[in-house]
Amino acid sequence: MIVVMKERATEAQIAAVTERLEAYGFEVQPVIGARQTVLGAAGVQPDFDVRHIQVLDGVSNVVRVTSSYKYVGRSWQEEDTVIDIKGVRVGGDEVVMMAGPCSVESEEQLDAAAAAVAAEGATFLRGGAFKPRSSPYSFQGLGEEGLRLLRTVADRHDLRVITEVMTPSQVDLVGQYADVFQIGARNMQNFDLLRAVGRTETPVFLKRGLSATIKEWLMSAEYVMASGNPHVILCERGIRTFESSTRNTLDLSAVPVVKNRSHLPVFVDPSHAVGFRDKVVPLARAAVAVGADGLMVEVHPDPPRALSDGPQSLFFDQFSDMMRQLRLVAEAVGRPMRAAHETSV
Amino acid sequence: MIVVMKERATEAQIAAVTERLEAYGFEVQPVIGARQTVLGAAGVQPDFDVRHIQVLDGVSNVVRVTSSYKYVGRSWQEEDTVIDIKGVRVGGDEVVMMAGPCSVESEEQLDAAAAAVAAEGATFLRGGAFKPRSSPYSFQGLGEEGLRLLRTVADRHDLRVITEVMTPSQVDLVGQYADVFQIGARNMQNFDLLRAVGRTETPVFLKRGLSATIKEWLMSAEYVMASGNPHVILCERGIRTFESSTRNTLDLSAVPVVKNRSHLPVFVDPSHAVGFRDKVVPLARAAVAVGADGLMVEVHPDPPRALSDGPQSLFFDQFSDMMRQLRLVAEAVGRPMRAAHETSV
Amino acid sequence: MIVVMKERATEAQIAAVTERLEAYGFEVQPVIGARQTVLGAAGVQPDFDVRHIQVLDGVSNVVRVTSSYKYVGRSWQEEDTVIDIKGVRVGGDEVVMMAGPCSVESEEQLDAAAAAVAAEGATFLRGGAFKPRSSPYSFQGLGEEGLRLLRTVADRHDLRVITEVMTPSQVDLVGQYADVFQIGARNMQNFDLLRAVGRTETPVFLKRGLSATIKEWLMSAEYVMASGNPHVILCERGIRTFESSTRNTLDLSAVPVVKNRSHLPVFVDPSHAVGFRDKVVPLARAAVAVGADGLMVEVHPDPPRALSDGPQSLFFDQFSDMMRQLRLVAEAVGRPMRAAHETSV
Amino acid sequence: MIVVMKERATEAQIAAVTERLEAYGFEVQPVIGARQTVLGAAGVQPDFDVRHIQVLDGVSNVVRVTSSYKYVGRSWQEEDTVIDIKGVRVGGDEVVMMAGPCSVESEEQLDAAAAAVAAEGATFLRGGAFKPRSSPYSFQGLGEEGLRLLRTVADRHDLRVITEVMTPSQVDLVGQYADVFQIGARNMQNFDLLRAVGRTETPVFLKRGLSATIKEWLMSAEYVMASGNPHVILCERGIRTFESSTRNTLDLSAVPVVKNRSHLPVFVDPSHAVGFRDKVVPLARAAVAVGADGLMVEVHPDPPRALSDGPQSLFFDQFSDMMRQLRLVAEAVGRPMRAAHETSV
Repeated sequence: MIVVMKERATEAQIAAVTERLEAYGFEVQPVIGARQTVLGAAGVQPDFDVRHIQVLDGVSNVVRVTSSYKYVGRSWQEEDTVIDIKGVRVGGDEVVMMAGPCSVESEEQLDAAAAAVAAEGATFLRGGAFKPRSSPYSFQGLGEEGLRLLRTVADRHDLRVITEVMTPSQVDLVGQYADVFQIGARNMQNFDLLRAVGRTETPVFLKRGLSATIKEWLMSAEYVMASGNPHVILCERGIRTFESSTRNTLDLSAVPVVKNRSHLPVFVDPSHAVGFRDKVVPLARAAVAVGADGLMVEVHPDPPRALSDGPQSLFFDQFSDMMRQLRLVAEAVGRPMRAAHETSV
Repeated sequence: MIVVMKERATEAQIAAVTERLEAYGFEVQPVIGARQTVLGAAGVQPDFDVRHIQVLDGVSNVVRVTSSYKYVGRSWQEEDTVIDIKGVRVGGDEVVMMAGPCSVESEEQLDAAAAAVAAEGATFLRGGAFKPRSSPYSFQGLGEEGLRLLRTVADRHDLRVITEVMTPSQVDLVGQYADVFQIGARNMQNFDLLRAVGRTETPVFLKRGLSATIKEWLMSAEYVMASGNPHVILCERGIRTFESSTRNTLDLSAVPVVKNRSHLPVFVDPSHAVGFRDKVVPLARAAVAVGADGLMVEVHPDPPRALSDGPQSLFFDQFSDMMRQLRLVAEAVGRPMRAAHETSV
Repeated sequence: MIVVMKERATEAQIAAVTERLEAYGFEVQPVIGARQTVLGAAGVQPDFDVRHIQVLDGVSNVVRVTSSYKYVGRSWQEEDTVIDIKGVRVGGDEVVMMAGPCSVESEEQLDAAAAAVAAEGATFLRGGAFKPRSSPYSFQGLGEEGLRLLRTVADRHDLRVITEVMTPSQVDLVGQYADVFQIGARNMQNFDLLRAVGRTETPVFLKRGLSATIKEWLMSAEYVMASGNPHVILCERGIRTFESSTRNTLDLSAVPVVKNRSHLPVFVDPSHAVGFRDKVVPLARAAVAVGADGLMVEVHPDPPRALSDGPQSLFFDQFSDMMRQLRLVAEAVGRPMRAAHETSV
Repeated sequence: MIVVMKERATEAQIAAVTERLEAYGFEVQPVIGARQTVLGAAGVQPDFDVRHIQVLDGVSNVVRVTSSYKYVGRSWQEEDTVIDIKGVRVGGDEVVMMAGPCSVESEEQLDAAAAAVAAEGATFLRGGAFKPRSSPYSFQGLGEEGLRLLRTVADRHDLRVITEVMTPSQVDLVGQYADVFQIGARNMQNFDLLRAVGRTETPVFLKRGLSATIKEWLMSAEYVMASGNPHVILCERGIRTFESSTRNTLDLSAVPVVKNRSHLPVFVDPSHAVGFRDKVVPLARAAVAVGADGLMVEVHPDPPRALSDGPQSLFFDQFSDMMRQLRLVAEAVGRPMRAAHETSV
């Protein structure tokens, strides 16, 4: 930790800060002294709140030197994490597609969606059984019946299941059906939930919170890893800004930033970011171009009749057309992507 | 719902939109036609997603007319909600003070804080037993032992207990000790939790999420009310913006805005908003001046030794001085506030 | 304009609002009446401030129907604007590259940069002669000498000149040297400047302001067009959000959003958005993939010695490598991009 | 400047960074070494771009120690700046009121407003002669005729004139009529304009830009002071956030933050921040309570007929009522405010 004193800091203030630092157990070393005193303080614990020093008289600025996470950083593991999920390597060279409806509504709906996405090379079926809805009057999901359908239909089309878990008490149940736990953006800092999925061995797909900094997002991944589960996949899905033309602002810069700091795979969900299906395709192309390890996209057999998020769900022909475009972009950036029909039954 | 067509919308597009609206069960009425067609659609359900219409060809703009909430608005109840909590009327004329440490750490710490805040006219003791911490390596609270201490100490000083509940499975336990459930900012859209506290009769103190619009905040209150619990208190505690000089940006405009739309009481928490104790006092004064029904403030017998949020916790003498100032401001805006010593033992 | 009355609005309030609307010259037509009254008001002028009605008693919501701009929208011109600038068609099929140093520093520096970018297929040389710097102590540009160098060096390498104009009194001078006027992000709402460049025939490259909504950005383009100059090129360059890992947050969604509403060409400047050269290349790829009509990128012969924005400037070999990648992505999305050496001397 | 190396930084990287720092002219001193190397670099110039070091291999983080401004900070001047403007001390104990219409429209309008505000204790008449309007189709102000009216009417009521200057070429003209130059939020980083008013002796009222950090705002004040004019008054007027219920989000925390860092007076403009007159009064009370040195408020004899910003302008009786409330709040926080009628003719 570096403590920068104000230019007008008195000797007494510097002594008082030094004393306080030592009382907190730091080893203090005064540094450069052009116009002001700077104190180096070695031995800070990860949970030390630097504001304790910031509020002292005469202090101008405090900077933490050591990173506040242990497992998610490249200091812990330099090479990329690759997670093998039933034969699909997430975080490797391949650009992985996860697709399906927002909510599981019926076997017919889900089966149609699964067939369509599998035929185009997607390897994961997404679908919500428990739905976080901002209105209590909206469709809240089919619950366990939805989980059963996901498993059955995914197996039929040789797909893996990714579905959201919303609360710690659902973890066991959802774990019986899912290959990947999805943690939604609104739950990115639901710490009880992070610990609960962290105690399992099922991979965790952690969406970035609407107003989460990249650092906070990585700290949430750290919760999962510190609980024992190293299989975390990050997913950028748009942040909240002043711009209201799109549902959220997709922060594609986050992909190279996270890749630089962390070894974990990074996905992009353009559907939730933009909120309107006509904008999904160009942003999906951009996500592949920027270097995402995979995408999560909403597709529905009849979007105008979808019980949730229909307006941002693609029609089947749009999905096919998008996949065709994405394969070209993936090739342009030197990454493989499954061909159409390859994984379909 | 109002559907504004583009100026260049064709007859066929207008017909298609009309047909789709009718298929959704709306009664359609074309309106003013200076340069473009506008369609009125009556009969929209609260959970209808207007983006279904927004994405249709030829549509420029769609506006929902009916509000999407039922209970929290002044349409449902015109007069202010006043909640009597063991003799203190929350939402009435009096400006109510809730104060105490961030975390319950020990009986000594809590008792000292309770005595100090009661002596100054606070009527609620705050303190966390279960702590949501952004780092897994930070102090996570004393758990049930913390709840027991809160109850014992609060009773000793004739204070009411407000404490955070973080997950649905804690609701029963916390409910045995608390007079008010606090829902933290990170859980404002933890819908399972909102439903769980909504099924109790204990008042709910709902903090605004870091990036929640006022509308979303009211929708979360709606979740609680729609589950059967009408006793909701709203609390503004700062929103996330680009400005990093303070921990968050306290949005005091939210107080008159919410007062205009809703009948629910509105509190302000300046401690979490600014994050540094020297800024808490001026913003507390501003909160009273803007018309808040009460404040929540962090106080600690020894802030530099606090296990959480010490840098934003007031020393006892700062709290006393703040209360003296707040009483003057409350008087200036014509609202009573308890005198010092009135409620102390 | 649509005026939605509150559910509890009284007859007297509705009558008062109607009267006020008529006094403003509107033709009023009451509309659907499920639970509340809605008034249609025809004849609104582009400059009418709808808040006049919003503040009236009993009003819930007011929505402007007619768009507030005339020239920039697709209602005015359905087909894309293509601007021929000395033989390069901006806004057509080709993805156009504008590149060069942040500031003009010397003939040697500029000539080296021009040679390097021309050799890779760039057709415009960028470079600042008048620099807007947030600190008064930073390098402020070479002024007219910089303009002269730009013209001389660009001509030598068969490049077009784009350079920033900061204040109305510079318009004549800069106009003698530049092929395109750049309006910087900080000046997007410098209305005197917009009018001044709008009275010329030189194309205007209008960067989006750091906190400008897409609507405000288009309104600034409208200023230029309403002053008589139809040759406007829009440029997304990052918006200000809470995320501080990158200098700004590049809003690539803006590209399809603007393309949908306006006929004007849209460029992307990844250099200013991210602020660090290692992030420029992936975001440049994403910009081409999302559908931008061109890019503006900073390149410098010796970035560590650059007098401004060196850390976000590419080295020549990075630029060459980026161009190679961009040509592949452009091909993947079906758009031509100049080959290396084609335009070099 | 402090350079924190990554934990995995190699010896070669540390040596390369040290060499680069020395090449930039810094004196380098290695510091604490628990888990990683930290380098102190003395001798940084105010205009050095720390990103030059940030981008080097092996660097984790770079922190500037010395502040980047010279004149605006409390290091330069510890005591508060007080500016005497024709007998009114701005920045002293008194809470100063500047009020008047958004735009000067006619002598009748302005005279009525001036009489009303003077009668209530305001000492400055505000009014725009040159108006920055986001639409080219809106009223753009009376120009010099507006300036003449301001001077005449203000003198008649013993008021000082504050009015906006939009472009460097207007500085001389406006300076003939105004007692204070207002720099609008959109021009906070119009550096040519800052320099132009900085070369005069007329006090400058510098509004915070919509998306300006406090640091950038102070850097703009530094431009004025570095050009020779020490008479700068800062004005918070709302920042842009995701919340759209109010026009902007008034950042009242900025008042104590700026007071801590700078010696300059800080005002608050609640009218532009909230945008609706019913929210102006509570936020004006909060501004006085938080410690602002003065307020700027819009008042109009007939707001529904105002040519600009009528919806946020107060009626005369609202203004009188507000002033009565503000005097009470000012008294509560121990600051004098002029009584009604004291300065009226």
